[in-house]
Amino acid sequence: MHLELYPTTSGITPKQLEGTTAIVFDVLRATSAIVTAMAGGYKRVYPLIDAGEAMELAERNGYALGGERGGEKIPGFPFCNSPLEYWPKPCGSNTLVLTTSNGTRAIQLASCADHVYIGSLLNARSSALAALEKGLNISLVCAGSGGGFSFEDFLGAGFVIAEFTKATEKIFSMNDTASAAHTLARYFANDPLAGLKAGKSGGRLISRGYDRDLIWCAQINRFDLAPIFSDGYISVEDTDTKLSQLE
Amino acid sequence: MHLELYPTTSGITPKQLEGTTAIVFDVLRATSAIVTAMAGGYKRVYPLIDAGEAMELAERNGYALGGERGGEKIPGFPFCNSPLEYWPKPCGSNTLVLTTSNGTRAIQLASCADHVYIGSLLNARSSALAALEKGLNISLVCAGSGGGFSFEDFLGAGFVIAEFTKATEKIFSMNDTASAAHTLARYFANDPLAGLKAGKSGGRLISRGYDRDLIWCAQINRFDLAPIFSDGYISVEDTDTKLSQLE
Repeated sequence: MHLELYPTTSGITPKQLEGTTAIVFDVLRATSAIVTAMAGGYKRVYPLIDAGEAMELAERNGYALGGERGGEKIPGFPFCNSPLEYWPKPCGSNTLVLTTSNGTRAIQLASCADHVYIGSLLNARSSALAALEKGLNISLVCAGSGGGFSFEDFLGAGFVIAEFTKATEKIFSMNDTASAAHTLARYFANDPLAGLKAGKSGGRLISRGYDRDLIWCAQINRFDLAPIFSDGYISVEDTDTKLSQLE
Repeated sequence: MHLELYPTTSGITPKQLEGTTAIVFDVLRATSAIVTAMAGGYKRVYPLIDAGEAMELAERNGYALGGERGGEKIPGFPFCNSPLEYWPKPCGSNTLVLTTSNGTRAIQLASCADHVYIGSLLNARSSALAALEKGLNISLVCAGSGGGFSFEDFLGAGFVIAEFTKATEKIFSMNDTASAAHTLARYFANDPLAGLKAGKSGGRLISRGYDRDLIWCAQINRFDLAPIFSDGYISVEDTDTKLSQLE
């Protein structure tokens, strides 16, 4: 089994993802928000690139609607992409439509893979176990920021790699970026919050008063679920994966 | 002052390097070999991309000649790119012509910068101090391998960033890739050899019997010199930089 980490979405070709299981990371904050929303009770999340399309889909069906651009809520949208907005789950629809600057784009891009999971620190172990169970090579896709590298997505992928190494004794190879991300996760193993603060996005969120979001997103393995993207929406796969099944 | 780390040479544009001081890393093994060769007594190193051109320049002038492709010596070349071949300095010319798969190419590419230093673990502190002294923003250019990311070059850049932070209290910003490289260096601070072994190039060199090369290249701050690339060749700048001058 091979792990290939893509530190940014720039230059990823469909061919690279085909035949693999992908896990997508936009740790601050889209994928952490999606994992939180589904843990709280949402049954479906539609990750859309276009804000107008998102608004239309939500209005037509009475779905909940969240959207972010440049770290702030899109005007006219009830919710942004802060995980805390979805915890506890707001009253209303069990379906959420979400559009964000980088995360929803990365999820759509990853749909060339055979399976697409939503990754974060919150569900590092569950997403790792679910992906391993598919038995394919694994692509770790970091959403990054504006096509560039994001520290926290790289770190999130590293925490999932750490879970792979704990979960299975199977020999697997990984590319050098995956080894570097794994090193980052080992460095911040006992203080993931410091890791989230080390990148530019983390610093920016803190300067805007979103400290609590970072604290929330830094909770390793808080949730035992592996949201999967298929047929245009994200839903929750039951993760009763047992370690014994992997060996 | 800003530090911008380029984890690979792919996509670097001349404009990004203009007006900055660059430090180039091909830790296994080109830049480590160049630093070793100059520490041993070579006065000039010509880093050439083309093997035929390198051979011709060396033959015409009676220069020493080293060349590597795919990790092995180019047929007909007296030397490869192992630092140990240049330590102690072989008898003969004090000028070396060197052509390697990635390193010499990265050095030539970096020549768009205002100043270009040769970086490695062996001279991490000296290259950091010399670059700081120029007073410009700094570009850390990782040669990588075949256009892709190399663990050990990223780690080498991280060790130089660690030296920046020790050498000056000046506030500087860095991009997220630089923060990640710095984290790697902190993780491997007490065992840089383990860091060099963690990447694919390190593993490949060990499998070919080049263990001693890794041990050599892992010696942090073994040499106090900052080779600089200018006018087509590399020479040694005297590094009597004093910490006090930076403050």
